[in-house]
Amino acid sequence: MLTSETFIRVRYGETDRMGYVYYGVYALYYEVGRVEAFRKLGFSYKELEERGILMPVLNFSIDYKKPALYDELICVKTFVKAYTEGPRFPFDYECYNEKNELLNTGRVVLAVLNKESGKPCRLPSWFTDELKKHFNP
Amino acid sequence: MLTSETFIRVRYGETDRMGYVYYGVYALYYEVGRVEAFRKLGFSYKELEERGILMPVLNFSIDYKKPALYDELICVKTFVKAYTEGPRFPFDYECYNEKNELLNTGRVVLAVLNKESGKPCRLPSWFTDELKKHFNP
Amino acid sequence: MLTSETFIRVRYGETDRMGYVYYGVYALYYEVGRVEAFRKLGFSYKELEERGILMPVLNFSIDYKKPALYDELICVKTFVKAYTEGPRFPFDYECYNEKNELLNTGRVVLAVLNKESGKPCRLPSWFTDELKKHFNP
Amino acid sequence: MLTSETFIRVRYGETDRMGYVYYGVYALYYEVGRVEAFRKLGFSYKELEERGILMPVLNFSIDYKKPALYDELICVKTFVKAYTEGPRFPFDYECYNEKNELLNTGRVVLAVLNKESGKPCRLPSWFTDELKKHFNP
Repeated sequence: MLTSETFIRVRYGETDRMGYVYYGVYALYYEVGRVEAFRKLGFSYKELEERGILMPVLNFSIDYKKPALYDELICVKTFVKAYTEGPRFPFDYECYNEKNELLNTGRVVLAVLNKESGKPCRLPSWFTDELKKHFNP
Repeated sequence: MLTSETFIRVRYGETDRMGYVYYGVYALYYEVGRVEAFRKLGFSYKELEERGILMPVLNFSIDYKKPALYDELICVKTFVKAYTEGPRFPFDYECYNEKNELLNTGRVVLAVLNKESGKPCRLPSWFTDELKKHFNP
Repeated sequence: MLTSETFIRVRYGETDRMGYVYYGVYALYYEVGRVEAFRKLGFSYKELEERGILMPVLNFSIDYKKPALYDELICVKTFVKAYTEGPRFPFDYECYNEKNELLNTGRVVLAVLNKESGKPCRLPSWFTDELKKHFNP
Repeated sequence: MLTSETFIRVRYGETDRMGYVYYGVYALYYEVGRVEAFRKLGFSYKELEERGILMPVLNFSIDYKKPALYDELICVKTFVKAYTEGPRFPFDYECYNEKNELLNTGRVVLAVLNKESGKPCRLPSWFTDELKKHFNP
């Protein structure tokens, strides 16, 4: 399993008048989580795009348990639970606050597209070779 | 069934470097959709808050079919498919572009909370009386 | 003078925990204002980009007098006060709430760039011919 | 002089279809900068609010020199150049990319308000005593 823990400080502009982090902001937090998970493989999502792969979001779902508050340091745990070569690449998420209370759980499935053709494709071997190392044979 | 159609023009700042509307922006579009659905009942969501009801989001899920592009006029269709008095209030969504192509479908479930106690509660009768009119007996 | 009035409903996600529209959100409101001002000339900013002109922001300044609140319908007044052919294109702004109270005033100066070269350039005549009509000879 | 350097990784959702960080996003980056400058004094901006001080933004101005790009690690340098007790509290800014190229310079002036009365006030001595230490006598 590929896992990553990323810490994000809640910005004032991310809160709403209820005093909570606005529910749509977690899309950004989850994005940061998966980008940092990729970075653990040794390359950035940016590099994937530069090398011809686009990964737009296919599905996004999130269950909110508790709100995050201004200035809290949120821990975003990102999981790639099964080895996959595409063309659907799922991430699971858990967010925690500083008291280690579970704030929300979610899932994002990315498409794997060839940038030129726009068609679904498999991930390149330079990517999957690194990913494979995080999964038992 | 309570339904509402709202038109939203895509802002430049809502696009990302892929040229698409960023996947998290639909949280805002869906929020606009349900606020306008409420307004069809004769009052604003703001008024609900002022009269002691908070409705934070419990779940949000969305399936992306096609991207929305800069400057397109998006139609957000919002549906309250069944009469409900809370404490879980679901909205279903469909977004279309100007060519009437389906962009995404989604669901948002709001909690119904008493503002003072923070506890789940039923919606007040001044709200449900209006809502009821949109559903067959 | 080219002027435009655009109405924008404040979204919940645009407020912050102070209950006000977050100060950075006006960048989006001002963007909507100038795009609608361009549309009064008969074409969209999108079309400008498609026809080879990029107009990134050079300067942005804003003076906040009063906060905008959730669900208010804000009027963004956009002014092009002097005829210009580039390569610096200034917009002046005033925002008002529903009580016609002045919320803020601001200025945004856009660069006019050739998309291919990335260099400053003049606006094309199909644009300036329309713009000219709004200014006295 | 009180100075602070904060590093912010550009998120995908912060870019626009030009491939640049959207011009309004720097309001968030500058906010992070001044919050971290305050933290160097030994307390958070959140604490200021909890202890009865609100600091909404009065003016914001920014000059853009170069765009920030996706996934870059931006350095936000925040300066409080002169000792002040309010009721106008100015911050100066410089943003740099990883190549140490200057991206933009700006200024944000905060009001200092008593939370209860909403009126301008002086900063409390527990704040100014710490601030004073960063300025020559």
